[in-house]
Amino acid sequence: MKTFSENLLNMCKEKNNRLCIGLDIDNRKLKNDSLSYMEGFIKDIIDSTVDICPVYKINFAFYERLGSKGFDILYKISEYINHRSITIADCKRGDIGNSSKYYADAVFGTLNYDSITVSPYMGEDSISPFCDYKNKGVFILCLTSNQGSENFQNKVIDNEKLYIHVTKLAKQMNLNNNIGLVVGATKTKKMMEIKQHSDSLPWLIPGVGHQGGSMEDSIRIGSLNNSCPIINVSRGIIYAGNGTIEDIRLSAENYTKQIRKIL
Amino acid sequence: MKTFSENLLNMCKEKNNRLCIGLDIDNRKLKNDSLSYMEGFIKDIIDSTVDICPVYKINFAFYERLGSKGFDILYKISEYINHRSITIADCKRGDIGNSSKYYADAVFGTLNYDSITVSPYMGEDSISPFCDYKNKGVFILCLTSNQGSENFQNKVIDNEKLYIHVTKLAKQMNLNNNIGLVVGATKTKKMMEIKQHSDSLPWLIPGVGHQGGSMEDSIRIGSLNNSCPIINVSRGIIYAGNGTIEDIRLSAENYTKQIRKIL
Repeated sequence: MKTFSENLLNMCKEKNNRLCIGLDIDNRKLKNDSLSYMEGFIKDIIDSTVDICPVYKINFAFYERLGSKGFDILYKISEYINHRSITIADCKRGDIGNSSKYYADAVFGTLNYDSITVSPYMGEDSISPFCDYKNKGVFILCLTSNQGSENFQNKVIDNEKLYIHVTKLAKQMNLNNNIGLVVGATKTKKMMEIKQHSDSLPWLIPGVGHQGGSMEDSIRIGSLNNSCPIINVSRGIIYAGNGTIEDIRLSAENYTKQIRKIL
Repeated sequence: MKTFSENLLNMCKEKNNRLCIGLDIDNRKLKNDSLSYMEGFIKDIIDSTVDICPVYKINFAFYERLGSKGFDILYKISEYINHRSITIADCKRGDIGNSSKYYADAVFGTLNYDSITVSPYMGEDSISPFCDYKNKGVFILCLTSNQGSENFQNKVIDNEKLYIHVTKLAKQMNLNNNIGLVVGATKTKKMMEIKQHSDSLPWLIPGVGHQGGSMEDSIRIGSLNNSCPIINVSRGIIYAGNGTIEDIRLSAENYTKQIRKIL
């Protein structure tokens, strides 16, 4: 059986793409705010992009706001994609081991997502219950693209930035070849530094598009060591043009063209 | 209008207690695993302890495993407690600002909890959307009680541990007097060190009970600077004796007696 990182790379190669569409849908911003319309709209986005899009990332914050009905939609999304693309549950979980097991059960079992994002603050035993699901992927927050990354991630410990310590732990824990890193696209020099330590770990890269990170640097650096960089674009696609499915498809195609040119 | 920290301290003084019962209920461990039984059992625990228990902490991991039905129970718990005690949504959220706003909306709005636990890894702008809810509380992970706290929290940055940097940021952000810290009970010396920097921020203290931290040190140190220490006990109460409501009440009374003796 193939590992998560192999499956991810295969899916990306098959579709000749590294695009990840972030399905960060706020029903209040749609022309009809009912949840059934929202669900239909998400399915339409998937239908119109699944042939070229290897990865979808679903940020749970947008769905939890809707309570149990939002949780239902989270389930329906992974069910609808049905492994035609890789799904990332972007929920940044992390707790003591016993609780992390329950979170892993929720995301990998109940909701049946292919992978998850986790926060490293509580350390190895808070992350390992997720990695124990051998066929599922675990993207560990490493260097994020927001201003707040300066507060702690960028601080120096024993001559190395905190995010390098996180990178090293991630590599060391990668026994099932199912760990990746979240690496923001906004800082090119830092991406090179992380790559030196992250070996072939795949990267989930936010910050291209709306936040202005470099697509070219992200893909070139992210692809080193035979690794798989995943370029996440959320608002740049789902709010493209007038927000119609045609505009969304067009935007996904444009990002895909940019990516293929660099590959 | 009173601030969150004032409300918390008032509730604790009113009930002459600092106990927080962690409602980490796994339906598979109950004598009947149906969700309606689970819901009834949780309500019975609340009924039998709410007169002495000022705070309930609900770890979301245990409920998310149940999918949308678990989310329904999360809502029903806060609705049932109905501000007779303070509720803590122990879900350790944290994301870029825009997404954190949605998480805050989910927990404080949709689910109507009084406070939340958040992870600091993504920095100030990932925490502030929670703090903007002026009457709600935000407990920031500082020093946790698990083994993994050694990986990053205990590392030295500019001559101070990472958890001291987190403490300082928390104090600096406490403009609405609604920020607290999660400080594990297992490390007494470190608790003293944190107290020197945390001023009057209330602490949520796990690690007493099942994990063996000192109740006395936790309360004495946590109470310095006119502050409010909250002693969380989960398994030590909900699995007490034979797990009957009578055993749970007895265990809650025993912890309460220990706490009152120290106060």
